[in-house]
Amino acid sequence: MAAGIIAGIKKQAKKDLAVVLSDVPAHAACVFTTNVVKAACILFNQSVLANNAPVRGLVINSGNANACTGEAGVVHTRMMAEAFAQSLGVQANEVLVASTGVIGVPMPIEIVVEGIKSAAKLIGESEACGHEAAEAIMTTDCFAKEFSLEVEIGGKVVTIGGMAKGSGMIHPNMATMLGFVTTDVNISPVLLKEALQESNGRTYNMISVDGDTSTNNMVTILANGQAGNPRIDKHGADYELFTEALESVNRYLAKAIARDGEGATKLLEVFVQGAASEEDGQKLARSVVASSLVKAAFFGQDANWGRVLCALGYAGVKFDPTKVSIEFISQAGGISLMNKGEPIAFDEGLALTVLKEKEIKVVVSMAEGDAQATAWGCDLSYDYVRINGSYRS
Amino acid sequence: MAAGIIAGIKKQAKKDLAVVLSDVPAHAACVFTTNVVKAACILFNQSVLANNAPVRGLVINSGNANACTGEAGVVHTRMMAEAFAQSLGVQANEVLVASTGVIGVPMPIEIVVEGIKSAAKLIGESEACGHEAAEAIMTTDCFAKEFSLEVEIGGKVVTIGGMAKGSGMIHPNMATMLGFVTTDVNISPVLLKEALQESNGRTYNMISVDGDTSTNNMVTILANGQAGNPRIDKHGADYELFTEALESVNRYLAKAIARDGEGATKLLEVFVQGAASEEDGQKLARSVVASSLVKAAFFGQDANWGRVLCALGYAGVKFDPTKVSIEFISQAGGISLMNKGEPIAFDEGLALTVLKEKEIKVVVSMAEGDAQATAWGCDLSYDYVRINGSYRS
Repeated sequence: MAAGIIAGIKKQAKKDLAVVLSDVPAHAACVFTTNVVKAACILFNQSVLANNAPVRGLVINSGNANACTGEAGVVHTRMMAEAFAQSLGVQANEVLVASTGVIGVPMPIEIVVEGIKSAAKLIGESEACGHEAAEAIMTTDCFAKEFSLEVEIGGKVVTIGGMAKGSGMIHPNMATMLGFVTTDVNISPVLLKEALQESNGRTYNMISVDGDTSTNNMVTILANGQAGNPRIDKHGADYELFTEALESVNRYLAKAIARDGEGATKLLEVFVQGAASEEDGQKLARSVVASSLVKAAFFGQDANWGRVLCALGYAGVKFDPTKVSIEFISQAGGISLMNKGEPIAFDEGLALTVLKEKEIKVVVSMAEGDAQATAWGCDLSYDYVRINGSYRS
Repeated sequence: MAAGIIAGIKKQAKKDLAVVLSDVPAHAACVFTTNVVKAACILFNQSVLANNAPVRGLVINSGNANACTGEAGVVHTRMMAEAFAQSLGVQANEVLVASTGVIGVPMPIEIVVEGIKSAAKLIGESEACGHEAAEAIMTTDCFAKEFSLEVEIGGKVVTIGGMAKGSGMIHPNMATMLGFVTTDVNISPVLLKEALQESNGRTYNMISVDGDTSTNNMVTILANGQAGNPRIDKHGADYELFTEALESVNRYLAKAIARDGEGATKLLEVFVQGAASEEDGQKLARSVVASSLVKAAFFGQDANWGRVLCALGYAGVKFDPTKVSIEFISQAGGISLMNKGEPIAFDEGLALTVLKEKEIKVVVSMAEGDAQATAWGCDLSYDYVRINGSYRS
């Protein structure tokens, strides 16, 4: 159950505080930013999870990242957890805290604490409380990102629901944004963590908006076991079903973040096949999707495929350029641009037709092996510059 | 001696072909792109230099990179070297070839070969031939980049002159653009190579415009010994004098490339002091100067220093964020933004005054050791997106 409210942290009257409560203690797993500079809430959550104790809820504010805020930031994070815990009769070390927004500005902590108390009273009150929470974690996002599905495991219906936010400072490196997934599946903490890490590597870690790995990134999953399925405590059919469903949820949210990248007009999907290993494929796909030049070319609907090959070339993967083939595909059709290292003359009119669409797939065939990987990103537009030239204002 | 002409490779009537000739055979040293995808000319030059044989000249065209052009590209590069060699009575394997421009489009080789023959006849004819050559290697550059100085070594006046071009697909990784330096110093080939690599690491390798490492990057130096100084064949005072002078030339050209980055309105200089090692300092400085979010904030004259700390955090260097201090300095003054991990309240009016200037210095103090490093870059503007949305057109 959740709530999302206007606490007054943002300058505009927009939702900026979300809370999530599990009826019963839930197993929790997280992946955190790999940035050396970690926001106060990241350090707090790492200590909460250090003892593998169950978690009761999440507090998330947008409008202020509480990062680079020195000692005050540490105190403020703890005050947030305590305010939520006291309102609901749980312990502060059963609460995870996430913050997103501007870096380096002290939290307006009185407003935040009051907001948490108000939000705690509203949990589950509204039918749309999940959607309201998804709205309350947005920063420069243009739309709320939420997805849920049901899957039958061990004869029981298991629900997995998630919400996430983008949409700048997004670059694949463990967790690269905020993502919150809740499920009623009954699963061991060890396998829950493994499932999250595995799916994170193929979803959130495979998106990039601008190459900047945030100080506040985290993806969290809470599993409270209320579905009543036989506890998943080993690899097998039930675990596979769960991880497949979890990956679907996370893939949907990750793609939504890429699609809603700051200033984006197009979703880019880079599919690398024939890589020597999945790791190679991931590096190659991520390098292409993160290239400013590739992104600017797609914004301009310019079939500048040489930049794709160039970005493959500096991905840190060895390969033979004379074996590479490249195609651009959208719902309007497809064009082949390079075949086994040789450029292909192509029709510029057809290329423009293909590239005018809102979703473009770049298919790269390496002919080095059998592995494949997909990365998602967006184009680089004037609006990205506008948004980030005045973010604090 | 040099020449720069309009051969007709570019769509517009702009200079697009440069040739450089050394009166006598010169020792040559090069650093090349680390991109796995290397343009045909890079592979050709590597073979020319493989035997440490002397070099007589350079042929450089702009308007077409001859990269990702398959087998035809290999043939075309050799035809360029042969055309130059035949015109001047030297051997094709004494000629280095560089190309820059659009990737993946076949060279208009007849036009290029005719241009080389014409240019060869004009070498040294014009008093401004060096400047004309510097103009002829430009692509999206707004101004020609050239610099020369004289230094007395062993009682003789040694001249070092260089030209370079930017201004997109620029990211530090060995050589990240085209740079050509000629000198009459008398030096052993081994020390010439060492001097180039050392200064490259502190100059061209420390700039970034857009994070993309090109397929065609190279920096070349030719030294023909005509200054008559006692041959530099060991480390010592003469070698130090030469490397210091060479670094000045390369630093000037590297900064010019950063200042003229595609769409740039500001030169950014990131100075990291107190790093644990020079390598750490370089990684930290490069990470800040390459961050799209840092660059967009400076374009918007927004003192969003949290993004600087964030970019330090994902540089791949371990450090203690609570020891970091950050200042922004320009000729209009300076502002302290973070002191030993604690944010400092600052005057927004003063910040704007500082950030309105065309050259901004970001000073980062790590308090981890005694090493320092400097990187140069530029802001990210609407014009970067405009230029790269339609580069091929």
